[in-house]
Amino acid sequence: MQTQIESQGEKETGRLEAFSDGVFAIAITLLVLELKVPSMPLAGATSASLAKALFQLWPSYLALVTSFFTVLIMWMHHHAILRNVHRTDSRLHFSNGCLLLLITFVPYPTSVLAAYLQTPAAKMAAAFYAGSFVLVAISFSIFIYGAFRPHLLSKNASAKFIEATHRSYRMGPPLYLLATLAAFVDARLSLGICTVLWIYWAAVIRG
Amino acid sequence: MQTQIESQGEKETGRLEAFSDGVFAIAITLLVLELKVPSMPLAGATSASLAKALFQLWPSYLALVTSFFTVLIMWMHHHAILRNVHRTDSRLHFSNGCLLLLITFVPYPTSVLAAYLQTPAAKMAAAFYAGSFVLVAISFSIFIYGAFRPHLLSKNASAKFIEATHRSYRMGPPLYLLATLAAFVDARLSLGICTVLWIYWAAVIRG
Amino acid sequence: MQTQIESQGEKETGRLEAFSDGVFAIAITLLVLELKVPSMPLAGATSASLAKALFQLWPSYLALVTSFFTVLIMWMHHHAILRNVHRTDSRLHFSNGCLLLLITFVPYPTSVLAAYLQTPAAKMAAAFYAGSFVLVAISFSIFIYGAFRPHLLSKNASAKFIEATHRSYRMGPPLYLLATLAAFVDARLSLGICTVLWIYWAAVIRG
Amino acid sequence: MQTQIESQGEKETGRLEAFSDGVFAIAITLLVLELKVPSMPLAGATSASLAKALFQLWPSYLALVTSFFTVLIMWMHHHAILRNVHRTDSRLHFSNGCLLLLITFVPYPTSVLAAYLQTPAAKMAAAFYAGSFVLVAISFSIFIYGAFRPHLLSKNASAKFIEATHRSYRMGPPLYLLATLAAFVDARLSLGICTVLWIYWAAVIRG
Repeated sequence: MQTQIESQGEKETGRLEAFSDGVFAIAITLLVLELKVPSMPLAGATSASLAKALFQLWPSYLALVTSFFTVLIMWMHHHAILRNVHRTDSRLHFSNGCLLLLITFVPYPTSVLAAYLQTPAAKMAAAFYAGSFVLVAISFSIFIYGAFRPHLLSKNASAKFIEATHRSYRMGPPLYLLATLAAFVDARLSLGICTVLWIYWAAVIRG
Repeated sequence: MQTQIESQGEKETGRLEAFSDGVFAIAITLLVLELKVPSMPLAGATSASLAKALFQLWPSYLALVTSFFTVLIMWMHHHAILRNVHRTDSRLHFSNGCLLLLITFVPYPTSVLAAYLQTPAAKMAAAFYAGSFVLVAISFSIFIYGAFRPHLLSKNASAKFIEATHRSYRMGPPLYLLATLAAFVDARLSLGICTVLWIYWAAVIRG
Repeated sequence: MQTQIESQGEKETGRLEAFSDGVFAIAITLLVLELKVPSMPLAGATSASLAKALFQLWPSYLALVTSFFTVLIMWMHHHAILRNVHRTDSRLHFSNGCLLLLITFVPYPTSVLAAYLQTPAAKMAAAFYAGSFVLVAISFSIFIYGAFRPHLLSKNASAKFIEATHRSYRMGPPLYLLATLAAFVDARLSLGICTVLWIYWAAVIRG
Repeated sequence: MQTQIESQGEKETGRLEAFSDGVFAIAITLLVLELKVPSMPLAGATSASLAKALFQLWPSYLALVTSFFTVLIMWMHHHAILRNVHRTDSRLHFSNGCLLLLITFVPYPTSVLAAYLQTPAAKMAAAFYAGSFVLVAISFSIFIYGAFRPHLLSKNASAKFIEATHRSYRMGPPLYLLATLAAFVDARLSLGICTVLWIYWAAVIRG
């Protein structure tokens, strides 16, 4: 009977994971839609002017790469976390839902940042971008607390992994808040912090 | 041989579920595309004007959140329902198809609501939004009747769950109709009812 | 060893199916993006003018429903066909790829039809729409021939099903060609034929 | 215990594959969004002018087909490669992530090519397009090196397949670089090379 409970629990998170994977994969792919084809009078377009226009889109490329890896690494952690969980309940479903809502939202601040990074409104755009990740980080923390409750854990859950996850994610909200505040000093500083953060979390992932 | 039939039935709904999960996940993620980057003369944009523009988009955020959770919770119920079903037939496939059509439609009334909530056309936008959910709720009811037919049910289907589902979803179409009619009194009242409804159905879900 | 070969073959089509399911699900959900929020001077918008604008979009709704069910039913047949197939080879992969290319294309003629159905260019829009389904139907036929080759079939493949599928799909290309030609007489006649066709194929599906 | 390790490894790549499949499927389907409905004064539109406008979009169709098959074939190889791999580690995850980033990017140079192929900026558009595939090909090579490390390989990995894959993909970056340089001679020559390349790699795939 124990095995039946285990396998039933595994099936439950399997569905939650498959749906979440879908949302992560779609959100990450929709990021490309923020890249707009440079519009210029088609007849007068030259290779030089197109090259210049494509080059000037560097804030879009930068925003795309930053958001892509931030979401990708969150997906990896999401997976690593649920590998330790065998049962679900409505609280886990709901906290996962809130996280997914914010993940699907990410392409929007990414577009805003890309559109305004080279304008006088750059600071606000960067603050909006980093501020969105404050919300993502908070909802990720709530998700972790929802997932790592004793009656949901799998029998072979790693106490060490749970501890390490709690420790590294506890720093998420304050660090993104720092990036948000840094935006009012300099937009690029804020983006730089966001970049350092995904590289840090990428390094934290264990196989 | 009994187990073979069971497992074959399980495989059939498995495919139906996987496809439906995909459509739900994509529809829920496409909602973000209704959020438009504020357009203003880029050179004259300031942090203050961008902040104001982003803030004025609150109807879009509200519409996004309401639609996201309404669809998410419908997906959860969809799953809970099919957990009790082991075989499929063309009627179930077709009623599921109609439901998916309406789910993929949801981003459109969401965009309309977001675009017109702060205009004199708010009442019609809210009526169109809530009215779309009348159709969704009707097709969900038809789907439930299609799924809970004796020869499709799994052996361990819960009669109590089936009864409770019928009871709670029977109220869907009239309640969304009420929200639609309320829109002609006040658009926000209508949105408020839609919000209460997804919170109610979220609470109804049992682990 | 026989069972190993069988199960390995099943795994191969499993991957093909999962990828195809994804493409079908995304293409079917992207159809909603053809629906544009009515644009009018926001300040002067009234509930009456919005209602009228939403109502005038009926060609878009009609095109959406027709394309949705045509693709949905093609997905169901795709599944039913691959249930009889256990092994894959490059020819099956390639013919499936061509089919998927045309499935991902469907949202485009759907948008064209929706945009021009009420203009003097309606006939060409309907011919382009129905003509696209001629290509889809041809590639579906090629896919069927690619799938139903003896060395790929599963041991419990149904000869009756294979025969019936060949028979009903052989009619696809000429019937859509008829719809294309009918477009030059009357755009609505063409759309009507397309509607009859998906209803016919829906009826042909067996459980 | 050996089987446990094997099956655990299989599960790990299973997740990586499922997520990657999702991203490939979405990126390939988003390509259609680059096709814009011809815009002309709706009242004055005639069947003849619409036909002409749809015909003039041939660069878009060509770009769509080329990108579609290039990505589709890359997906097939991705699958064939991971069939030989049973364990994952962070380096494989990260190199796969970089590949996915570039795959999601493909719709953008496709749109740029489609928009500018018939303008005086055609050479730059084709160079940007082929140049993007240089990056894709480099990241694919890095992915292959990441995947084919001895401690990740499955016990029944085919040394011959690994050798053949290394050999055929080693040519990817220089050949796409050639296509990029060819763009500055003639945009169509560049596109022609890209077309020959996906046909070549399609032929290389074994079952």
